[in-house]
Amino acid sequence: MEPTPEAYIDAHREPILARLLDFLRIPSVSTDPAHGADITAAANWVAARLREAGIMAVEVLKTAGHPVVYAEWLGAPGRPTLLVYGHYDVQPPDPLDEWRSAPFSPEIREGRIYARGASDDKGPMFIPLAVAEAFLATEGRIPVNLKFLIEGEEEIGSPHLAEFVARHADKLAADYALSADGAMWRPTEPSLTLGSRGLVALDLEIRGAHTDLHSGRHGGAVRNPLHALAELVAGLHRADGSVAVPGFYDGVEEPNEADRRQMAQLGFDEEAYRAAMGVPALYGEEGYSTLERQWYRPTLEVNGLYGGYQGVGSKTVVPSVAHAKITCRLAPGQMPDEVLRRVTDHLRIQALTGVATKVSPHAGGAPAYRINAAHPGLRLAHDVLQHLYGTEPAVVLMGGTLPISDIFHRVLGIDTIYFSFSTADEDFHAPNEFFRVSRLWEGIAAWIDFWRRASEYPLPSELEEAGNPCT
Amino acid sequence: MEPTPEAYIDAHREPILARLLDFLRIPSVSTDPAHGADITAAANWVAARLREAGIMAVEVLKTAGHPVVYAEWLGAPGRPTLLVYGHYDVQPPDPLDEWRSAPFSPEIREGRIYARGASDDKGPMFIPLAVAEAFLATEGRIPVNLKFLIEGEEEIGSPHLAEFVARHADKLAADYALSADGAMWRPTEPSLTLGSRGLVALDLEIRGAHTDLHSGRHGGAVRNPLHALAELVAGLHRADGSVAVPGFYDGVEEPNEADRRQMAQLGFDEEAYRAAMGVPALYGEEGYSTLERQWYRPTLEVNGLYGGYQGVGSKTVVPSVAHAKITCRLAPGQMPDEVLRRVTDHLRIQALTGVATKVSPHAGGAPAYRINAAHPGLRLAHDVLQHLYGTEPAVVLMGGTLPISDIFHRVLGIDTIYFSFSTADEDFHAPNEFFRVSRLWEGIAAWIDFWRRASEYPLPSELEEAGNPCT
Repeated sequence: MEPTPEAYIDAHREPILARLLDFLRIPSVSTDPAHGADITAAANWVAARLREAGIMAVEVLKTAGHPVVYAEWLGAPGRPTLLVYGHYDVQPPDPLDEWRSAPFSPEIREGRIYARGASDDKGPMFIPLAVAEAFLATEGRIPVNLKFLIEGEEEIGSPHLAEFVARHADKLAADYALSADGAMWRPTEPSLTLGSRGLVALDLEIRGAHTDLHSGRHGGAVRNPLHALAELVAGLHRADGSVAVPGFYDGVEEPNEADRRQMAQLGFDEEAYRAAMGVPALYGEEGYSTLERQWYRPTLEVNGLYGGYQGVGSKTVVPSVAHAKITCRLAPGQMPDEVLRRVTDHLRIQALTGVATKVSPHAGGAPAYRINAAHPGLRLAHDVLQHLYGTEPAVVLMGGTLPISDIFHRVLGIDTIYFSFSTADEDFHAPNEFFRVSRLWEGIAAWIDFWRRASEYPLPSELEEAGNPCT
Repeated sequence: MEPTPEAYIDAHREPILARLLDFLRIPSVSTDPAHGADITAAANWVAARLREAGIMAVEVLKTAGHPVVYAEWLGAPGRPTLLVYGHYDVQPPDPLDEWRSAPFSPEIREGRIYARGASDDKGPMFIPLAVAEAFLATEGRIPVNLKFLIEGEEEIGSPHLAEFVARHADKLAADYALSADGAMWRPTEPSLTLGSRGLVALDLEIRGAHTDLHSGRHGGAVRNPLHALAELVAGLHRADGSVAVPGFYDGVEEPNEADRRQMAQLGFDEEAYRAAMGVPALYGEEGYSTLERQWYRPTLEVNGLYGGYQGVGSKTVVPSVAHAKITCRLAPGQMPDEVLRRVTDHLRIQALTGVATKVSPHAGGAPAYRINAAHPGLRLAHDVLQHLYGTEPAVVLMGGTLPISDIFHRVLGIDTIYFSFSTADEDFHAPNEFFRVSRLWEGIAAWIDFWRRASEYPLPSELEEAGNPCT
């Protein structure tokens, strides 16, 4: 038996990696009901892995949606209790024809694991499982108390998680949450994430005639739902790139001087970013830098638009129906329900002649989140990263959304430390998603260190007002 | 043996109908290269049917696209020669889930044959084949000279037909064309069609980033191609419903007083039409009636719009690319190439920041067409219809496009009489396309009568300036 968790990991790299690839083979797409059995398989896989690691109290708990895997190891009395968060569900893999290797047949090329979910979030989520195994197999104990909450609905906005957390609030009580989700900012240095944007979603449908019509016979005499949709969608933004929905920006907090200084320190290269995106020019709300647009400003994005003929050649129809799928990223100060109501009202009120407009807001929005910069868990994460990488971690925000941080804060009264080892350039939500193999081993080393040193830091409950540990 | 073609038809209704259903089982979708073998099968089916009818000179002739079936029966010296036109190709059947029975498994319900192509144009096109058989099986001869030209590219705008007709101009020489394509106006009375609108097509593509992006990480910092597409599409029309492309209406001829009188005589019920379309209100270019919008005014219609996620739930991407498929119906006075150039220029000139716009005009546009109202073939069609239905045929125009009428006029110097027995309400180009079984038998009776009486009427070449035979 190896003497330390580190030595255990070194001796078992091959089976650890093989297990992660097995996990990636499960197409646990949460948004698509056709993948119901895969969701169950992924939840059971996580539960089995936790048991194999030596954690006995493992449950697959029902929700009104996909199940939550819950596990606990509470053998470190007097030490902190961490709520480890991750998710086993993934985004849909389409467009399929843009993948170099099949999304659910993981392939390692040039030090990268290519698969849907490799980076978001199966790779990072797998790390604490391996670390728990390494501690229990070598030291027979873990240096902190752990509660695992691994959910299956993150990619659809965690619609049932708030209810779940409230129902199990006693069971989930912890000093703070440690999230395996929430990618690092860029591959060149480690980073600490102090917050994220919120999210709301809605669908827009425009109906014209009861069926698709011949565009010769009927064209010009009935309103084309695609034209009406284009008009409504075009009207959602102003020429200056801002969102045209009345009241959309109500309550949004502008970045302050300190925020701007922190951004300036990052030395973000807009031209390099433009080139990496492959766009002729960057584009966004006037008066803001690219980082401000990604971190501080709310957005309204059409994620999908469709109606009529999409095949080869042409088909001369006036289609019966047109669709848009819309999401908004929210800034601190915006209330999800309020934003959803304003966008919905704005679309409904326009009531274009000759067509019927239907707006369907989705349940389960999330507000933006900001952690207290003085949180001791953040200081610990900082020290672990600095030690591991030998460089000062960058302090950043996240443009994406992690609904759990708001839920944990609101329902359990605890903050969430983002401690993921994926990187934001790993094409999650896109074709050819990948996870760096090197980040797997770095992440394992970091989580070992984090758990080992957790009791050296004060608990948040002991915290007096303190300065920002990260600047 | 039956003594007359009519008696022959009466005695063979069952096998005739069965043969048409066989024809409808061939999924000869011309726009989709995946259906290449089906196109060949349909062409061969038509050729075989002509040979079985007793016409020996049958050829399947190559074009740069799909083949043309050509056949001739020239055993009536001194009598008129008619160029019989039809097409064996069909529109794509999607959206498939809206069909009550499968599009290529014809089903007869309540006197209607449901199948893709039943009405456009396999049902009507099948009629002259059956009539030729009936004449040859009973009288051993046909009372006129016939040349059949049955093409396979009508549904994609007959892009290779002009070249084909020019190459075979000598072979195709005729007194006038008799088209089995070009639906009657409504099911309540027969109608004569004096003209049709033209057609041009183009594709619009907007590209942003090199791949789909996570809308959290990148949203707000790059231009969303779906927003750009919506903006361009919304800008194609003005608030008054007119097309906003500069110069689009150049040369368009307004309906004159006689045209308006003729329309008024039809007693078109806009409210009944609105209810039949299932729309809350009719909508179109201000200052024109519904019939004027359908017959006299050019249109620009988006037939398909797509990009990003189209599945269940949501997927938070800023897509890489967005598409629109666009066609314009043309009025007399508009030149297809000129309209295509103007729309293309209008889209290209806007060059939105942050995205790349690509406009791809399709080859093979067709101008609008008007027949000389004094054409003797029109008088003959009028008399045949009046005799068959016991009522005065309505005089109408067609909103759709039949590129052949312009091609025949331009290349062969002959006019085209539309003599189809489909009806414009038969949902062609839409789900649940159907053809009325009663119209099959009426059409056969009418074509028998037309061919039989063709020599009683002057040839167009003998025509002096005469009054409109139809008013």
